[in-house]
Amino acid sequence: MDKVKVGVVGGTGYAGVELIRLMLGHARAELRVLTSRGDAGRRVDEVFPNLRGYLDLSFVAPDEAELENCDVVFFATPNGTAMHDVPRLLEAGVRVIDLAADFRLKDVDEWSRWYGMEHASPELIEEAVYGLPEINRAAIRTARLVANPGCYPTAVILGFLPLLRSGLLESGRLIADAKSGASGAGRKAALSMLLTEASENFHAYGVAGHRHLPEIRAVLSGQAGTAVDLVFVPHLLPMIRGIHATLYAGLQGDAGDLQELFESAYRAEPFVDVMPAGSMPETRSVRGGNLCRIAVSRAPGSDTAIVLSVIDNLVKGAAGQAVQNMNLMFGLPEAAGLDSVSLLP
Amino acid sequence: MDKVKVGVVGGTGYAGVELIRLMLGHARAELRVLTSRGDAGRRVDEVFPNLRGYLDLSFVAPDEAELENCDVVFFATPNGTAMHDVPRLLEAGVRVIDLAADFRLKDVDEWSRWYGMEHASPELIEEAVYGLPEINRAAIRTARLVANPGCYPTAVILGFLPLLRSGLLESGRLIADAKSGASGAGRKAALSMLLTEASENFHAYGVAGHRHLPEIRAVLSGQAGTAVDLVFVPHLLPMIRGIHATLYAGLQGDAGDLQELFESAYRAEPFVDVMPAGSMPETRSVRGGNLCRIAVSRAPGSDTAIVLSVIDNLVKGAAGQAVQNMNLMFGLPEAAGLDSVSLLP
Amino acid sequence: MDKVKVGVVGGTGYAGVELIRLMLGHARAELRVLTSRGDAGRRVDEVFPNLRGYLDLSFVAPDEAELENCDVVFFATPNGTAMHDVPRLLEAGVRVIDLAADFRLKDVDEWSRWYGMEHASPELIEEAVYGLPEINRAAIRTARLVANPGCYPTAVILGFLPLLRSGLLESGRLIADAKSGASGAGRKAALSMLLTEASENFHAYGVAGHRHLPEIRAVLSGQAGTAVDLVFVPHLLPMIRGIHATLYAGLQGDAGDLQELFESAYRAEPFVDVMPAGSMPETRSVRGGNLCRIAVSRAPGSDTAIVLSVIDNLVKGAAGQAVQNMNLMFGLPEAAGLDSVSLLP
Amino acid sequence: MDKVKVGVVGGTGYAGVELIRLMLGHARAELRVLTSRGDAGRRVDEVFPNLRGYLDLSFVAPDEAELENCDVVFFATPNGTAMHDVPRLLEAGVRVIDLAADFRLKDVDEWSRWYGMEHASPELIEEAVYGLPEINRAAIRTARLVANPGCYPTAVILGFLPLLRSGLLESGRLIADAKSGASGAGRKAALSMLLTEASENFHAYGVAGHRHLPEIRAVLSGQAGTAVDLVFVPHLLPMIRGIHATLYAGLQGDAGDLQELFESAYRAEPFVDVMPAGSMPETRSVRGGNLCRIAVSRAPGSDTAIVLSVIDNLVKGAAGQAVQNMNLMFGLPEAAGLDSVSLLP
Repeated sequence: MDKVKVGVVGGTGYAGVELIRLMLGHARAELRVLTSRGDAGRRVDEVFPNLRGYLDLSFVAPDEAELENCDVVFFATPNGTAMHDVPRLLEAGVRVIDLAADFRLKDVDEWSRWYGMEHASPELIEEAVYGLPEINRAAIRTARLVANPGCYPTAVILGFLPLLRSGLLESGRLIADAKSGASGAGRKAALSMLLTEASENFHAYGVAGHRHLPEIRAVLSGQAGTAVDLVFVPHLLPMIRGIHATLYAGLQGDAGDLQELFESAYRAEPFVDVMPAGSMPETRSVRGGNLCRIAVSRAPGSDTAIVLSVIDNLVKGAAGQAVQNMNLMFGLPEAAGLDSVSLLP
Repeated sequence: MDKVKVGVVGGTGYAGVELIRLMLGHARAELRVLTSRGDAGRRVDEVFPNLRGYLDLSFVAPDEAELENCDVVFFATPNGTAMHDVPRLLEAGVRVIDLAADFRLKDVDEWSRWYGMEHASPELIEEAVYGLPEINRAAIRTARLVANPGCYPTAVILGFLPLLRSGLLESGRLIADAKSGASGAGRKAALSMLLTEASENFHAYGVAGHRHLPEIRAVLSGQAGTAVDLVFVPHLLPMIRGIHATLYAGLQGDAGDLQELFESAYRAEPFVDVMPAGSMPETRSVRGGNLCRIAVSRAPGSDTAIVLSVIDNLVKGAAGQAVQNMNLMFGLPEAAGLDSVSLLP
Repeated sequence: MDKVKVGVVGGTGYAGVELIRLMLGHARAELRVLTSRGDAGRRVDEVFPNLRGYLDLSFVAPDEAELENCDVVFFATPNGTAMHDVPRLLEAGVRVIDLAADFRLKDVDEWSRWYGMEHASPELIEEAVYGLPEINRAAIRTARLVANPGCYPTAVILGFLPLLRSGLLESGRLIADAKSGASGAGRKAALSMLLTEASENFHAYGVAGHRHLPEIRAVLSGQAGTAVDLVFVPHLLPMIRGIHATLYAGLQGDAGDLQELFESAYRAEPFVDVMPAGSMPETRSVRGGNLCRIAVSRAPGSDTAIVLSVIDNLVKGAAGQAVQNMNLMFGLPEAAGLDSVSLLP
Repeated sequence: MDKVKVGVVGGTGYAGVELIRLMLGHARAELRVLTSRGDAGRRVDEVFPNLRGYLDLSFVAPDEAELENCDVVFFATPNGTAMHDVPRLLEAGVRVIDLAADFRLKDVDEWSRWYGMEHASPELIEEAVYGLPEINRAAIRTARLVANPGCYPTAVILGFLPLLRSGLLESGRLIADAKSGASGAGRKAALSMLLTEASENFHAYGVAGHRHLPEIRAVLSGQAGTAVDLVFVPHLLPMIRGIHATLYAGLQGDAGDLQELFESAYRAEPFVDVMPAGSMPETRSVRGGNLCRIAVSRAPGSDTAIVLSVIDNLVKGAAGQAVQNMNLMFGLPEAAGLDSVSLLP
């Protein structure tokens, strides 16, 4: 059977190298082109020595990359890059999965406010499918352009979803206290992300407003059918990988069996694991894997639901979910290339 | 001037060694006796090589320790130890600061439920003063027996206090999402606290009920003059020291200037630092110091107050606060021995 | 084709869980029995939540395990366990790979001195094959009993081997300054291995004599054809996985091209990667993989060879090498189940 | 008594902020001027929030700083900065302690080769005193210009010194396998020093030649009275602070009692702690302190001495040693401001 021909634009960031790792273990896909502006001409395994012996490719400058011959192109680029190149690729019949934020918000003005630039392809925003399979599986299968969700949104939305759809929520606010490993900040030199600054340390950031807030709010409001009031506080964890979202929501009346609610909501989902009652999922239990593990409980002596939701920010929060989307788009088994077991310890 | 003669029961845990460190830098106190059941007879600096050259003492078995000659005895012991020894010491005229939980709850039945044992000295519970100087300074000065607060309670109570007293709170629930470094679990061999298990990992614990929940709830309710509904979720951080409490509270009506509220509440407090508006305090900014640094803001587009409160769990959350209490009890400058600058990086 | 039926004795340690992970990705092997004394009856994925969704087995008490029906049994047990059970299994026609030290030393008296017990099956020592494929591949293929090498010995021996065989060494001492991640100490509660004790810290251990010293010395002497004088100092790294051995050896005369010497020595080896001249291998480049990456150079202004050798102590240093040995013993492709790419970051 | 008036040029690096911390605890010195090119005009405690409440100073641009009114100026600047400004300050009667490398090598040509620039003040090189009190105490007292040693050289030289002076060494090579925490790389954004790159990882660097090699070799050769053949391999530890040097030296004849040799060599030294025989010093035992802790032993079955030497690279390896030098230069007690106990854990 033919393999899906894959191109990756921006292969030298953390989402990029994770895409490469996953593609190398994917029996039905083949890496054809990897682009990099800064490392064009260098062997990929020179930049990432963990890949020595696994692939024989060099990075290509974006302008010289023959992306039109690919079946699908992933953009693992900074925000504001894909929107310039996508129209040309779609015209050439190439399908696109953007791991950045260019096509995540439907409201183009809100997008411009949060991302500080004008959108280069506003006409494609409506067509783009938000690539969270748990809510958009059918649309993803036929999409030309998929907007891969942000890492925090994936963990937060999957955690709130069964509650939102249940009608059990009090009409109050939702609170998402989220914590991310340092790889969420990307592979770029920044003083605040040095080991000397970020290890043995913990703090919140973006309290006054984080770009994932409008993304989460829009999706949750869409699912709830009404505007949702969300408080979102992200924090930086002194570790490499993993997101842990601790979610709080007020319940009304007789809220029933939360455990059963969640289990039935996700019974058919290959990558959402509702853990047994009383569990407290660890981020390392999904390290390197595409799973979102979730536990739900009621706060002792309170009518508040507590949801604990963990993902690997680089896998289910980025590259793994992108591969899951590719599998859906090309009619492959949804879990192809995504079945490796997390390293422990 | 005479120095305060100090005894420490249980000097081999993390609160114990931190007490020793602080006493060595305290010009008005003098370590006389350090007890340890397991390490009796060993030199202190053999157990803790960082102390080589700083003190010339050996641990003494609890039964042989002449604690009656001390002015004050600190219990840095597991819960349920101090309550057996305190009556004898108080009778001998020795004042006591208990860093464990034996005298923190006024409701002895609730205490027994949470700590799983009968209380050995219930008659002393009423007399014991909860040793949070920011709410009980006057009573601490004259106390014979001080119940030093838990680490989470210190960070959470100081963060909620100005809001509680302001009348700005909506009559809803308070949420405390708290994160602690691994030293909060103490110096004892436990599989789950190995570097291999606890580093590169993050998870909640005690969601179904943590012993600090009734302590916080009782103090907050006392300050508010009404029962407070608190949701409390602690998490384990992959680092050694530090607590970060992220606090959420619904506001009613025109909530006014939160920054000014907090600044005026703590203007006179030597160990509470209200940071400038927009700050996000880092746990490392208080590592090794007795400060609680706090920032307050309003969630964007919401009537929810967000308070960020950080302490070093072993200092303001344990040994440092105990020294602060000792200073008050003996008429010393409140900051004596507590003025060292945090290490950064 | 039939799969190799695999049993693992002692599946709850780190080498055990790593064996499970590798077997789950091995197309030609099938886990049949996992034993554990302490966790008998518990589901494996309850002990190791990272395995949820990947296998449906529970631990079995050692006495009730039907190991005789396996084709191969791995012992991932403490030292001194396998030697009691191996005779019975060999008689039953089961082949055995011991990840502990019971059959690594040929000199039974030396073994007893270092391991502090009498050997229970001395008659099997001679037959046991030291399972380092790079020196014993042919013998491993037909072995009934394989003594899987220690983690330090694997990194040190592979690093010195080309020099030893070359005749370039001055007749002086070899020095191995080795550093290991904390998982080398195993999955057992120990005060010194707590995150609070072992992170943000570094120190040597076993300077007066480490059990891997006689193992390395015996193998190196055997390869050199003469007694080798080895100085070996292990150190504990504040991280989970990885060994880095820094090796020093005096060179004599015109030592020629060290790079070429190493490249030709390992050209045919699937799991030894000689990196380009000037490289300094990172432990993370082999994390989770079975590779040993090596760089060699000459110290500036000196006739000393410096070899840098890295492995993942739980893979090439334990479970991965054990699988490599199983593959050889059962005529499978040597790299079967060992081809996953290391996670980076 | 008058306090020493102190200026610090380059106060925003890690050596700079450590100098500030130590000066704040020094009863006989007073910070007057802190310069920074990039942060001129900003409050110091805005850049370093751990200092909030401890000092009321802002950074001053180098050109506007009135350094001539100081008694002593510390340069905590990149290499090649101090050499331009020192002549002017010395003329103005200000004494100088340079924490960078400008005046560490006596051979100006060798300096230029290693540091890649021409020296701006070669006439001062001869006068500059190498600021290692354990070998140059008398000269430091009267020096106008002190070249504060590098971090690796401090740990390595103090470890080899008693052996070198003893005549016990075989006329062979010395080997220094050294490991440093990440703060040794300074406070500047660099991809390789991100938490995501440097944590959970370990590797050597500078194997082909590190700038501290000529510095160590020159000092050791001077102490030995003959050229010393040194092999030096530095490694990067996944932690913030601490250097551990593992030193190897061949012994000749009857090498006598190494423990006694080291103890008598350092008996009078306030900042060198020879630990009991059999010790293995931990880097954390000196974290934040000015001590160098050393253990010496003989490798089992070999005539090789093994010395383990640990320092905090930012204290005895930089700022603390600089304060020790200032104390000597101004006739203060050598340990003034350097007596705080290391944090543990």
